[in-house]
Amino acid sequence: MRAVIVDTTSSPFARLRPVPVSSVRLEDGFWAPRLERLVKVTLPTQHELLEETGRIDNFRRAAGKLRGPFRGLYFNDSDVYKWVEAAQWALAYARDEGLKRLVDSVVAEIVAAQDADGYLNTYFTFERRGERWTNLRDMHEMYCAGHLFQAAVARARSTGETDLLAAATRFADHIYGVFGPGGREGVDGHPEVEMALVELYRQVGRREYLQLAQLLIERRGRGLIGGSPYHLDHAPFKQLREITGHAVRALYLCCGAADVYMETGDPELWAALDRLWHDLVERKMYVTGGVGSRYEGEAIGDAYELPNERAYAETCAAVANAMWNWRMLLATGAAEYADVMELALYNGALAGISLSGDRYFYVNPLADRGRHRRQRWFECACCPPNIARLIAYVPGMLYARSGEGVYVVLYAASRARVEVGGGAVELVQRTRYPWEGVVEVEVRPEGVDEFSLYLRVPSWARSARVEVNGRGAGPARPGSFFEVRRRWREGDVVRLGLDMGPTLLESHPWVSYNTCRAAIRYGPLIYCLEQADNGHDVWSLAIVPEGLRAEWRPDLLGGVVAVRGRALALDLSGWAGKLYAPLGSVEVPAREVEFTAVPYYAWGNREPGPMVVWARLAGRRGEGGQTLA
Amino acid sequence: MRAVIVDTTSSPFARLRPVPVSSVRLEDGFWAPRLERLVKVTLPTQHELLEETGRIDNFRRAAGKLRGPFRGLYFNDSDVYKWVEAAQWALAYARDEGLKRLVDSVVAEIVAAQDADGYLNTYFTFERRGERWTNLRDMHEMYCAGHLFQAAVARARSTGETDLLAAATRFADHIYGVFGPGGREGVDGHPEVEMALVELYRQVGRREYLQLAQLLIERRGRGLIGGSPYHLDHAPFKQLREITGHAVRALYLCCGAADVYMETGDPELWAALDRLWHDLVERKMYVTGGVGSRYEGEAIGDAYELPNERAYAETCAAVANAMWNWRMLLATGAAEYADVMELALYNGALAGISLSGDRYFYVNPLADRGRHRRQRWFECACCPPNIARLIAYVPGMLYARSGEGVYVVLYAASRARVEVGGGAVELVQRTRYPWEGVVEVEVRPEGVDEFSLYLRVPSWARSARVEVNGRGAGPARPGSFFEVRRRWREGDVVRLGLDMGPTLLESHPWVSYNTCRAAIRYGPLIYCLEQADNGHDVWSLAIVPEGLRAEWRPDLLGGVVAVRGRALALDLSGWAGKLYAPLGSVEVPAREVEFTAVPYYAWGNREPGPMVVWARLAGRRGEGGQTLA
Repeated sequence: MRAVIVDTTSSPFARLRPVPVSSVRLEDGFWAPRLERLVKVTLPTQHELLEETGRIDNFRRAAGKLRGPFRGLYFNDSDVYKWVEAAQWALAYARDEGLKRLVDSVVAEIVAAQDADGYLNTYFTFERRGERWTNLRDMHEMYCAGHLFQAAVARARSTGETDLLAAATRFADHIYGVFGPGGREGVDGHPEVEMALVELYRQVGRREYLQLAQLLIERRGRGLIGGSPYHLDHAPFKQLREITGHAVRALYLCCGAADVYMETGDPELWAALDRLWHDLVERKMYVTGGVGSRYEGEAIGDAYELPNERAYAETCAAVANAMWNWRMLLATGAAEYADVMELALYNGALAGISLSGDRYFYVNPLADRGRHRRQRWFECACCPPNIARLIAYVPGMLYARSGEGVYVVLYAASRARVEVGGGAVELVQRTRYPWEGVVEVEVRPEGVDEFSLYLRVPSWARSARVEVNGRGAGPARPGSFFEVRRRWREGDVVRLGLDMGPTLLESHPWVSYNTCRAAIRYGPLIYCLEQADNGHDVWSLAIVPEGLRAEWRPDLLGGVVAVRGRALALDLSGWAGKLYAPLGSVEVPAREVEFTAVPYYAWGNREPGPMVVWARLAGRRGEGGQTLA
Repeated sequence: MRAVIVDTTSSPFARLRPVPVSSVRLEDGFWAPRLERLVKVTLPTQHELLEETGRIDNFRRAAGKLRGPFRGLYFNDSDVYKWVEAAQWALAYARDEGLKRLVDSVVAEIVAAQDADGYLNTYFTFERRGERWTNLRDMHEMYCAGHLFQAAVARARSTGETDLLAAATRFADHIYGVFGPGGREGVDGHPEVEMALVELYRQVGRREYLQLAQLLIERRGRGLIGGSPYHLDHAPFKQLREITGHAVRALYLCCGAADVYMETGDPELWAALDRLWHDLVERKMYVTGGVGSRYEGEAIGDAYELPNERAYAETCAAVANAMWNWRMLLATGAAEYADVMELALYNGALAGISLSGDRYFYVNPLADRGRHRRQRWFECACCPPNIARLIAYVPGMLYARSGEGVYVVLYAASRARVEVGGGAVELVQRTRYPWEGVVEVEVRPEGVDEFSLYLRVPSWARSARVEVNGRGAGPARPGSFFEVRRRWREGDVVRLGLDMGPTLLESHPWVSYNTCRAAIRYGPLIYCLEQADNGHDVWSLAIVPEGLRAEWRPDLLGGVVAVRGRALALDLSGWAGKLYAPLGSVEVPAREVEFTAVPYYAWGNREPGPMVVWARLAGRRGEGGQTLA
């Protein structure tokens, strides 16, 4: 039993191996309280909502314990599975008897709902039994199955019970029987089952699950589900050059393909993943790590199509982005994937849950006039349990290891015990990250002496330096892992110093939405201007690009570093009643004010009001043609 | 028989009366060829497509002449009606025996398809007869009826046949019986029938049609069709403060409400229209007069939500905008409505049809990377016959009259005979409008001596002067009608001189899509930069805001005034592989080039390539932080 999120321990083409969630103890002010809130608030309230909305009753109904109609959307089973998965990983990290009882009871309901032939989907029971597998493109049957498999693996790896795993393998066998080699040529319209099948293979060793995952990827591009770019079915996966279509589906598919790659080493699969990754991060990803520009179809847009107010950027897509990059990192050990994973985790994904842990965003705009509100639940409730499971993954994503040593992937004050070189090492991280850029890692080897410690130097760092026991250890290049190889002795301390900013970012000039605008970054965090911190309408501020400063604010939003600076507050009264006017014809008086920016993940937790991530820059056209100091 | 588009001749609360299409003869280089192409190309090819796609067969089927299933979308009848309407107005303007035969044959098929009880909708026949009027929100039955009524009125007023009018009144009587006072409280989900009922009332004098139109407006806001802002059913029409929802529906509803107002003079109805108009033109209308920011639901967006690449701006919505403003102008005689009408006509609407007259845009983006292409037809083909009918309206929108005199609303070289003060006047317009700003109107009174000539001074004019027989007649304020009142003598000439620009426009700073960007206007025309005229990628040009010049180009796009100027061609190679970077960190070398802009209406008629309406301005941030000359 090893509580690892993605188990590459025996994957021949994975460079890194994960470290169990249970081997890490968070002691920081950022993640530790979030994990606690996950267990005490998020998961219990989500369970209540799963009950209240009939999602668990659907299982009782399928088991014959309840009468009445199926309730809700046809893929609602997946919300229950994702909740179980999140709860199981949380239990791997933190004992909680109440949560354990809840999960056990839900798992019992799930298991009881399974058909004798292994099929399990509460929508396709009784009156809809005859419709099973008749509309693979739209009805998400394999998608739901995938979430079941992931929940089952999480349960087996975290608390050791194999009840759900047995149900999962029975269902996987059923699917293999229907869609495996020589069977029906089926592909699911909503990828997810691919990565789940690989994980199930890793857990139980049944190679046919890997084979089925491969088949489900290779069958794409032949029009089996309509042949559209929206479903990434217009070309074989290995020939894809652009990431298109429904954002979550596309990224889950990439997760699955990355998992298959780590088992098979297929170079064409890797080449496709590499192309899609570059297309995403160089042309289609929000500065927050969010993905999906369009409301219509919850889809990825064209290259450089990154609207702010109308960003869709579904919470699930940012979660999926983090999950994909975690896999790409495990495959390669390359720091660029850890950068994107961290970006999506701290920004695009984390914005999806309130500071209180019980309110959510489904859609994550990068600018708002004050209308976008957090909700306790959604009819389509994929996002709440998805952000829950991502938070539960965090302890398991802090470290990874290779034959050469230990990789520090994410920084947080914590203690961890990591197997390395036949022995183990206890690592004690002391840091106020993400609020400060100094990280001390104390190394306590046990039964091992020489190995490498790879410190991630984030690409966002303006500069970085590493010291070992107080002595400079050479230049540290942002966007890489810095290797410290030595014979370690108890109490050795490696110290990483990162210059966090604050930094103004601009975007590629073809991102027309951001012309003459800048976003603020501080360390791994993207900032926004929220009305609550600024007296003046934040859509009418033009920030002065010099003199930004970071300021620790323990009172604000649970404790954050705020970024402050000067801005011109534009008086737009001259524009009253006008939408267009000759350039420079409208007088826009301006006065200088202080602005305060807060981390994007924390927005929407106070009174509603305007918000912007990409703030207008002062000193350019756009303020009535005046050039302002 | 009076071939007027909207017959306010007897409307007690209309300030202006229309002038028949048949009283105007275009002699210009802009509209005259378009009217000819309408008759020779657009209407015949559309007729072929109506046949090819089964739209006319659906009528034959309903009449029992053909077997087989209904073909196409459930509202396809409306395309046939709109085509008949366009063809009838075209016949009012130009004799064409071939077109007349086509229309007569289509009308015969329509009339033959009517049920004995007056009902007429080819989708709801035979197997679907039982579904009539069961889903008013979605099934567009009254919408189709409205288009029938408009076609019937056009036929009666243009070529005098009353066959279709008889069918229309039978159907209107049927609807009145079902939904009139004391009947079912129904409201159609897609407004259109309201204005059509008022026009039918004006044509045949049956007051119950006006009454029904009123009812259909007044019943909104009570949840009869779901109560959503999308359907403008969330509040009574008279209480609406914001224009929301499906763009075409919203604007058609406003057309109907304006028509009802002109008959009833209800001040609350006017107040609502006034609020919605200001909300539209001050917060939600594209610089082209296009309307509808969102693909999802073809909807109007929030205030200032005016994306460019992803503008929806359906051709039908620009047509509807012109139609609404024509009615607002007739109601009031206020120049502001003529300004918006002209804007939508020359830009947002006209862009919807190719220069060749047989290719169309349904969606009208204001920026494109070269993917958006004109099509010969659409499955949902509302736009092609809609732009056809608007072009056919043009001769009837050049002039209007009041008790005091004649209003010149649109400028085009033409001859017209207008009834005024018990006599008439022949007006000869000599002008190269929209390419030049000089308009001479020669006045030839017949049996009338004193009356006013109201010359529209467009709001876009940078300055304007009026002369009568060579003598200055006082200052002319842009955005008004300039009144010349005198005892006219044969050969009197009024000369209007308009300074057309070119002018750079900026937008309200809350239109975040246009920060540091400008659009080019020349006279009534909005321009765009198209790849075909510019060697450098037009998304990578930053235009220099000074020194723009207009240049007549007879060879270009059928003859246009091009706007030329200087721009910085940005070399974005430093951005390769990057989407975000610290402000100013990427070098963007620039060289000065000449740019050429062409009228937006003419875009997309050559080889595909990038296009922008809102061009980046030089000398600001966004070019790598450099300040450029």
